[in-house]
Amino acid sequence: MTETRQKTLFVANRGEIALRIIRAGRRLGLRVACGFSEADRDASYLAAADDAICIGPAAASKSYLNIAAIISAARLLKADLIHPGYGFLSEKPEFAEAVESAGMTLVGPSADVMRRMGDKVEAKAAMLAAGVPCVPGSKGALPADPAGMRPIAEETGFPVILKAAGGGGGRGMRVVRRAEELAEAAMLTRQEAERFFGNAEIYLEKFLERPRHVEIQIMADAHGHAVWLGDRDCSMQRRHQKLIEEAPAPGIDRALVAEIGARCARSCVDIGYVGAGTFEFLYEDGQFYFIEMNTRIQVEHPVTEMVTGLDIVALQIEMACGKPLPFVQDDIVSAGHAIECRINAEDPETFAPSPGRVTALHLPGGPGVRVDTHMNSGGAVSAHYDSMIAKVIAHGADRTEALARARAAVAEMRVEGISTNLSLHRDLIAEPGFAAGGVSIHHLERLLKGKAGDHA
Amino acid sequence: MTETRQKTLFVANRGEIALRIIRAGRRLGLRVACGFSEADRDASYLAAADDAICIGPAAASKSYLNIAAIISAARLLKADLIHPGYGFLSEKPEFAEAVESAGMTLVGPSADVMRRMGDKVEAKAAMLAAGVPCVPGSKGALPADPAGMRPIAEETGFPVILKAAGGGGGRGMRVVRRAEELAEAAMLTRQEAERFFGNAEIYLEKFLERPRHVEIQIMADAHGHAVWLGDRDCSMQRRHQKLIEEAPAPGIDRALVAEIGARCARSCVDIGYVGAGTFEFLYEDGQFYFIEMNTRIQVEHPVTEMVTGLDIVALQIEMACGKPLPFVQDDIVSAGHAIECRINAEDPETFAPSPGRVTALHLPGGPGVRVDTHMNSGGAVSAHYDSMIAKVIAHGADRTEALARARAAVAEMRVEGISTNLSLHRDLIAEPGFAAGGVSIHHLERLLKGKAGDHA
Repeated sequence: MTETRQKTLFVANRGEIALRIIRAGRRLGLRVACGFSEADRDASYLAAADDAICIGPAAASKSYLNIAAIISAARLLKADLIHPGYGFLSEKPEFAEAVESAGMTLVGPSADVMRRMGDKVEAKAAMLAAGVPCVPGSKGALPADPAGMRPIAEETGFPVILKAAGGGGGRGMRVVRRAEELAEAAMLTRQEAERFFGNAEIYLEKFLERPRHVEIQIMADAHGHAVWLGDRDCSMQRRHQKLIEEAPAPGIDRALVAEIGARCARSCVDIGYVGAGTFEFLYEDGQFYFIEMNTRIQVEHPVTEMVTGLDIVALQIEMACGKPLPFVQDDIVSAGHAIECRINAEDPETFAPSPGRVTALHLPGGPGVRVDTHMNSGGAVSAHYDSMIAKVIAHGADRTEALARARAAVAEMRVEGISTNLSLHRDLIAEPGFAAGGVSIHHLERLLKGKAGDHA
Repeated sequence: MTETRQKTLFVANRGEIALRIIRAGRRLGLRVACGFSEADRDASYLAAADDAICIGPAAASKSYLNIAAIISAARLLKADLIHPGYGFLSEKPEFAEAVESAGMTLVGPSADVMRRMGDKVEAKAAMLAAGVPCVPGSKGALPADPAGMRPIAEETGFPVILKAAGGGGGRGMRVVRRAEELAEAAMLTRQEAERFFGNAEIYLEKFLERPRHVEIQIMADAHGHAVWLGDRDCSMQRRHQKLIEEAPAPGIDRALVAEIGARCARSCVDIGYVGAGTFEFLYEDGQFYFIEMNTRIQVEHPVTEMVTGLDIVALQIEMACGKPLPFVQDDIVSAGHAIECRINAEDPETFAPSPGRVTALHLPGGPGVRVDTHMNSGGAVSAHYDSMIAKVIAHGADRTEALARARAAVAEMRVEGISTNLSLHRDLIAEPGFAAGGVSIHHLERLLKGKAGDHA
């Protein structure tokens, strides 16, 4: 391989993020090849790539999650780089290793770093070492003796939540608001933990009543430099699925965000992180609490692009190619406000997926409006994959203007042939709690249950 | 009419600018009604309006140019405001008068101001009074006596161009490079003027060898305030049809642009101009020469929107509603660079229009890319109207990035079923003269003739 040969980027993903990566790769002058499953064979976005190759049957396990098939296809097309997008194999260390073993470069961090940050305990330890705050609580399991429990709870601060160490799925959890309730609550939670998980061990964490989901986008090169590109608020969620995201997070002290951002960037240097990544936090009462790191590009990256003017996917690719960061922290300017609505092919009442053929599609546009979509009139929404068909992103000089543009954009968009959540977005964008800014991660579910959101 | 009733905006235009106006009107919370000709009956953009009404047969003279039909339709739909877009009736004082007589408000300047700025001699006089430079030359007809001619030519500065006072169409024009050639050239030009136009009178102007087309966008309210929003370079033209526009104009001293811009804004206050307008200039050797004012929105307004973040069409509508300008000159910030490519349905070799049905359409997108179009897959390009089907606009942190994004965007775009000038744009965006910046208005025609553009 000579240095002057045009490099080939292989896209190991589908849909809007595949098109997004194709665009970034071509903008950088790379040859871009895209893998597709049999279900995506006729997808119009494939024509935007220089080359496209079938990687297997519709079922993701046989194509987009099939490491061997993807490596073979990428090799066949003489790929130098593989971009995994989000979801699918993007956070699988085994894939990162397979790419490396095959002599190609993954657009993402190394398998080691991916593995380390994918382990919640290790990730928290790394963050605490970098001065990034985490949700406080017991270090490991609580002592069985109520007297030993109480100082830990008091140091953490009430309310606290007791959780089964072997638990999950919302079971074996109990909120404790006063010290005098702690002993009995611990006993009951231990009983449940034993019953449900066969392990009576419990631990304790600070309980956040109405946290917001706020995250920090970082970018790091392979030469020991890292910057943070801004923050995003993604609190409008349903069952942990983000629905609306915005940048910056409204109503949070900018000096505090800058401090957290700088610590995130610093920790990237410490752990040897390369590429784009996101530090996810809960935020409540002026405090950030690290929850996890996403070691990949995120669905909501465009809101950060809209306020910074940067191309995060292009930067990701450049970092993977070993280029140094083309700017320093002080060069990054955030201007205005951006809001993204995820348009899903689903029933707006039941949220059941609505696959089928899009018979007509009218996309919004105009000043400050960007739509990231792989869909075209006549295109099919497959039942095999995620139901997101488009991201409508609106930018304005301030949040009020961004909201007005987003509202007009979701009002203008029309999709025929399938059901979408456009009507939900039309309601949410105009909903007083969201319009005021700073809703919690429980806001949408409360609204959907007919309650008045955070303000109930 | 009560103040609280939702106002109705009637769109007296078609295609991309109709959709652009519909978007701006709805963003402002207006009810938007759109007129359409029989040829546009099935156009998909009409569904973006609240209401649509047929204003006549396909021939523009019977619909989009039919003042009576438009006024009737607007009245029927209880319009308060009429937006004329560009072309068609947008610069016809008779239309402005008819709108006013019908008790509605035109989104544009008054008929009087439109008439005054539509008269080149009056417009120049107004500009000179405001300190805006015009192409120097004889004040009116040249004296017949060669001795009286020479001081005028010397004061103007060689080369000069002699033009028939009653002329046009490139006839009866002669460039004179040296004083000793003046007398004979004047005699020959007078003879031609007499022969072609029955009027031997000639006048003299400074001859610009390789001028650029640079223009200033202004916005004025009805309360005596006006600002300039930036400059645009639209030198890439073929037969006076702009093909690529950009903002700001590359390589021109920003202090000079600011001085000219301030004078343009000042002259708007002087003449009582309200709304959006453009002052068009030739620019050569560090000098601006006013040529004419366009008293309407322009095709290329998005490049200014991309660098300023403003919505010029929404501002236009607000000005027409009597709102004061929401900012002062110092608030206007121009960030980065923007380039627009006009995509026309035409043969890329012969430039013959290519009407027909668009069987497949793939639009570019991603960071910094905006496409203003009314087209959809399956839509028809009518032979009755202008061949422009889309504007691809790319913004970047600087001209290099804007060019790279524009290049990738026109490379990505695909239109099937008709011919387009996309291949020409792909060549031009990468052409060394254009890439260097600052080509003249003759550059494209020289390139098309197989010459090396301005650098021949």
